[in-house]
Amino acid sequence: MVVVMQPQAEEAQIQAVIERLNGYGFDVHRSSGVNQTVLGAIGVQPDFDVRHIKVLEGVADVYRVTEPYKFASRAWKKDNTTIDINGLTVGGDEVVVIAGPCSVESEEQMNEVAALVAAHGATMLRGGAFKPRSSPYSFQGLGEEGLRYLRAAADRYDLRTITEVMEIGQIEVIYPYTDVFQVGARNMQNFNLLKELGKVDKPVFLKRGLSATIDEWLMSAEYIISAGNPNVILCERGIRTFETYTRNTLDLSAVPVVKKKSHLPIFADPSHATGIRDKVLPMARAAVAAGADGLMVEVHPDPPQAKSDGPQSLYFDQFVDMMRQVRLIAEAIGRTVREPQQVSA
Amino acid sequence: MVVVMQPQAEEAQIQAVIERLNGYGFDVHRSSGVNQTVLGAIGVQPDFDVRHIKVLEGVADVYRVTEPYKFASRAWKKDNTTIDINGLTVGGDEVVVIAGPCSVESEEQMNEVAALVAAHGATMLRGGAFKPRSSPYSFQGLGEEGLRYLRAAADRYDLRTITEVMEIGQIEVIYPYTDVFQVGARNMQNFNLLKELGKVDKPVFLKRGLSATIDEWLMSAEYIISAGNPNVILCERGIRTFETYTRNTLDLSAVPVVKKKSHLPIFADPSHATGIRDKVLPMARAAVAAGADGLMVEVHPDPPQAKSDGPQSLYFDQFVDMMRQVRLIAEAIGRTVREPQQVSA
Amino acid sequence: MVVVMQPQAEEAQIQAVIERLNGYGFDVHRSSGVNQTVLGAIGVQPDFDVRHIKVLEGVADVYRVTEPYKFASRAWKKDNTTIDINGLTVGGDEVVVIAGPCSVESEEQMNEVAALVAAHGATMLRGGAFKPRSSPYSFQGLGEEGLRYLRAAADRYDLRTITEVMEIGQIEVIYPYTDVFQVGARNMQNFNLLKELGKVDKPVFLKRGLSATIDEWLMSAEYIISAGNPNVILCERGIRTFETYTRNTLDLSAVPVVKKKSHLPIFADPSHATGIRDKVLPMARAAVAAGADGLMVEVHPDPPQAKSDGPQSLYFDQFVDMMRQVRLIAEAIGRTVREPQQVSA
Amino acid sequence: MVVVMQPQAEEAQIQAVIERLNGYGFDVHRSSGVNQTVLGAIGVQPDFDVRHIKVLEGVADVYRVTEPYKFASRAWKKDNTTIDINGLTVGGDEVVVIAGPCSVESEEQMNEVAALVAAHGATMLRGGAFKPRSSPYSFQGLGEEGLRYLRAAADRYDLRTITEVMEIGQIEVIYPYTDVFQVGARNMQNFNLLKELGKVDKPVFLKRGLSATIDEWLMSAEYIISAGNPNVILCERGIRTFETYTRNTLDLSAVPVVKKKSHLPIFADPSHATGIRDKVLPMARAAVAAGADGLMVEVHPDPPQAKSDGPQSLYFDQFVDMMRQVRLIAEAIGRTVREPQQVSA
Repeated sequence: MVVVMQPQAEEAQIQAVIERLNGYGFDVHRSSGVNQTVLGAIGVQPDFDVRHIKVLEGVADVYRVTEPYKFASRAWKKDNTTIDINGLTVGGDEVVVIAGPCSVESEEQMNEVAALVAAHGATMLRGGAFKPRSSPYSFQGLGEEGLRYLRAAADRYDLRTITEVMEIGQIEVIYPYTDVFQVGARNMQNFNLLKELGKVDKPVFLKRGLSATIDEWLMSAEYIISAGNPNVILCERGIRTFETYTRNTLDLSAVPVVKKKSHLPIFADPSHATGIRDKVLPMARAAVAAGADGLMVEVHPDPPQAKSDGPQSLYFDQFVDMMRQVRLIAEAIGRTVREPQQVSA
Repeated sequence: MVVVMQPQAEEAQIQAVIERLNGYGFDVHRSSGVNQTVLGAIGVQPDFDVRHIKVLEGVADVYRVTEPYKFASRAWKKDNTTIDINGLTVGGDEVVVIAGPCSVESEEQMNEVAALVAAHGATMLRGGAFKPRSSPYSFQGLGEEGLRYLRAAADRYDLRTITEVMEIGQIEVIYPYTDVFQVGARNMQNFNLLKELGKVDKPVFLKRGLSATIDEWLMSAEYIISAGNPNVILCERGIRTFETYTRNTLDLSAVPVVKKKSHLPIFADPSHATGIRDKVLPMARAAVAAGADGLMVEVHPDPPQAKSDGPQSLYFDQFVDMMRQVRLIAEAIGRTVREPQQVSA
Repeated sequence: MVVVMQPQAEEAQIQAVIERLNGYGFDVHRSSGVNQTVLGAIGVQPDFDVRHIKVLEGVADVYRVTEPYKFASRAWKKDNTTIDINGLTVGGDEVVVIAGPCSVESEEQMNEVAALVAAHGATMLRGGAFKPRSSPYSFQGLGEEGLRYLRAAADRYDLRTITEVMEIGQIEVIYPYTDVFQVGARNMQNFNLLKELGKVDKPVFLKRGLSATIDEWLMSAEYIISAGNPNVILCERGIRTFETYTRNTLDLSAVPVVKKKSHLPIFADPSHATGIRDKVLPMARAAVAAGADGLMVEVHPDPPQAKSDGPQSLYFDQFVDMMRQVRLIAEAIGRTVREPQQVSA
Repeated sequence: MVVVMQPQAEEAQIQAVIERLNGYGFDVHRSSGVNQTVLGAIGVQPDFDVRHIKVLEGVADVYRVTEPYKFASRAWKKDNTTIDINGLTVGGDEVVVIAGPCSVESEEQMNEVAALVAAHGATMLRGGAFKPRSSPYSFQGLGEEGLRYLRAAADRYDLRTITEVMEIGQIEVIYPYTDVFQVGARNMQNFNLLKELGKVDKPVFLKRGLSATIDEWLMSAEYIISAGNPNVILCERGIRTFETYTRNTLDLSAVPVVKKKSHLPIFADPSHATGIRDKVLPMARAAVAAGADGLMVEVHPDPPQAKSDGPQSLYFDQFVDMMRQVRLIAEAIGRTVREPQQVSA
């Protein structure tokens, strides 16, 4: 921690700050120039609140020198983390595509979607069974019945599964059906949930909060890793800004920033970010071009009848087109997207 | 719902939109001017996603005419809601002050604080027992032991209690100790928690999410009320903006806006909003001047040693000064703040 | 400037950074701990771009220790700046109220407004003659004719005048008519204009840009002061955030923050901040309670017919009520607002 | 314009709104349902301030049905605008790359940069001669001398030129040297400047303001077009959000949004958006993938010695690499980037 005193700070103020720092258990190195004194405080604890020093008399500013997270940082682990999900590698050269409807609605719906997305190169099937809805009057999900449809459809077409867990009590019921636990943007700082997921032996897909800084996001990953689960996948899904034309603003610069600060894989979700079907394709291309390790997109056999987020769900032909285009983009930067393949149920 | 067609929309597009609206169960009134057609759709369900229509060919824009919430709206209930908490009225002429430490740390601490704040006109004691902390390495609260200290100190000085509930599983353990359940900013859209609190017979203090619009906030109140609990108190505690000098930006205009749109009482929390002790006093004054029904502030007998949020906690003498000043402000606008009183344990 | 090296930085990287710093003319103090090296660089120029060092190999972060502005800072001048405008003191105990229409529209309009506001305690008359309008199809102001009406009405009721200057070419034409030059939010970083206003012998009223940080705002003040004009008055008028119910979000915490960082007077403009007439009164009260040195509000004899910003302009009776209320608030915090007075033309 | 009355609005209130609308010159169509009345107002002027109606008693909300701009809209002109700049087409299939230093610093610097960028496929040379700097102590540009260097270097390598105009007084001096006038983000709402540029017979490159909505940006384009100059190129250069790791947040979804709402070409500037050299490459790729018609990037022969924005300027080898990669991305989506070519001075 570096403490910068104000230019006109008095010696008594400087001494008071040093004493306070010693009281907190720091070693202090003092460096006084002609105009200003700077104090280096060695031994900061990860949970030390630097504002304790910032509010003292004569202090101009305080900088935390070490990042507040450890296991999530590139400094701690230089190589990219790759995660094996029953034979599917996340975080490697392949750009992984997760696709499926916002909500699981029926067995037929899941089978139709799974057949399509598997045929065109997606390798993981999404579908919500417990839905966080901003209105109490909206469809709240099929629950465990939905999880069964998700799992069965995925198995039929050799897909992995991912579904959202909204609270600790749901971990147990979801566990048998999912390969990856998704934590939604609204739960990014549900710390108790994160801690519990740290004890689970399946990967966690951690969406960025609507107004979370990159540091806060990595802190949430730290919660999971420090509790024992190193397999965290990050997902940028748009942040809230003043611009309201799109639902959120997809912050694609977060992709290279996270790649520098952390070793964890990072995906992008252009469906939730834009909220508008016809913006998904260009933003999916852009995300891959920016270096994302994967995409999560919503696709539905009949978007106008979808029980949630239909307007941002792709029609089947749009999904096929998107897969073709992102494959070309991936190849342009030396990566791959799974080839279309013949699938049979 | 009002659907505005593009100026150059073709008749076939207009017909397609009308059919789609009929398919969703709306009655449609068509109004075609020289340049443009506007469709009024009657019978919208509260959970209808207007983007379904927005993405259709030829549509320029779609406006939801009705507010997405009902019970939380001023349209539904014209008079201000007042809430009785064991004899203390919230939402009336008296500006109610909630004070206490961020975290409950010990029996002595709670007794000291309770004695002070009761003597100077606060009527409710705060203190966290389960702490949501952005770092996994930070103090996580005393749990039920903390709740006992909170309750005992409050009872000794005739104060009401309020404490934060972070998840459904904590409702039961907290219930015997608290008069009001606080929902933190990070949980404002933890919809399952809101629904459960809707079944509880104690008031809920609902903080605004860091990046929640006023409409989303009132939607969260709707979750609680529609589940059966009409006693919701709102609390503005700062929103996230580009300005980083203060921790958050206290959006005081939310106070008169909420007063217009809703009948619910609204408080302000200048401690969390600013994150800096010496900004609490001016912003507490401003909140009362803007019309807030109450304040929530943090006070601690020894802020530098506080286990959480010490830098934004007031020293005892600062709290005394604040109470004196906000009382004068309240009187200037025809309201009151409880007078200082002699307390004995 | 403090340079923090990454924990795993190699000695060669550290040496390269030191050489680069020396190349830029800095003296470097090195402090190496067990895990990390920190470099103090003395002699930074105010215009040095710290990102030069931030991008070097092995560097974790760089902090500018000195504020980028000098004359605008409290460090440079400890006492509050007070500004005398022909006998009216800005920045003292009196909370100064500036009132008037958004645009000067006619002689009658200005006389009516001037008579009213002077009678109720305002001491400065506002009115735009050159209007910055976001639409090219909107009323663009009366020009010099408007300035004559402004000056004449003000003189008749012993008021000072303030009007907006939009570009360098307007300074000369405005000069004879105004007591204070207003720089609008959109021009806060029109640096050439600021430099020219630095050569003028009348005060400058500098509104905060819609998305300007407090530091950027003070940097713009620095432009004016460093060019020779120390009489700068700051005005908070709302920042752009995600919340769209109000036109902007009035950032009242900027008031105490500016008071700490700078010696300059600071006003608030609740009319532009909220954009809604019935939110002006509560926010005007809140601004005074937060410690603002003055208010700028819009008032119009017939708001529905105003040529600009009518919806945020107060009716005459609303203005009278506001003056009464802010006077009480000012007194509650030991300040004053000019008493109502008998005026005669 | 559509006026939605509150559910409980009284008949007298509805009549008052209708009268007011008639007074403003609107034809009114009334549509009353069981719960609510909706009024359609036909004949809105582009400069009508809808808040006039929003503040009336009984009004729930008001929606402007027509876009506030005309010439900039896709509704007015269905085909993409292409602009010919002495034989270079902007807005066609070719993705146009503008490159050069932030500031013109010397003849040698400009020649070196021009030779490099022309050799690798850029077709336009940038360089600032009049610099808007947030600090009065920073390098303010070479002025007309710089313009001469820019023009001469560009001519030697068959490049077009672009440079920033900061105020009306500079148009005349810049005119002989530039092919395109750049309007910086800070001047996006300098309406007088826009109007003057509307009278010039050279294209205008209009950067998005730091906190400008897409509608405001298109309104600024409207200023230029309505004054007579149809050749406007838009440029997304990052918006201000709460995330501070990057200088700004590049809002790439603005690219497809603008493509839908307007016929004007749109570029992206990843250098100013990110402010960090090593983030320019991924974001340049992403911008092309999102559908941008061109890129503006900063490149410098010796970034550490650049007089402005060195940290975000590419080294020569980074620029060469970027051109190679964005060419592959362009081809993946069926567009082109100019091939590398042999150039000789």
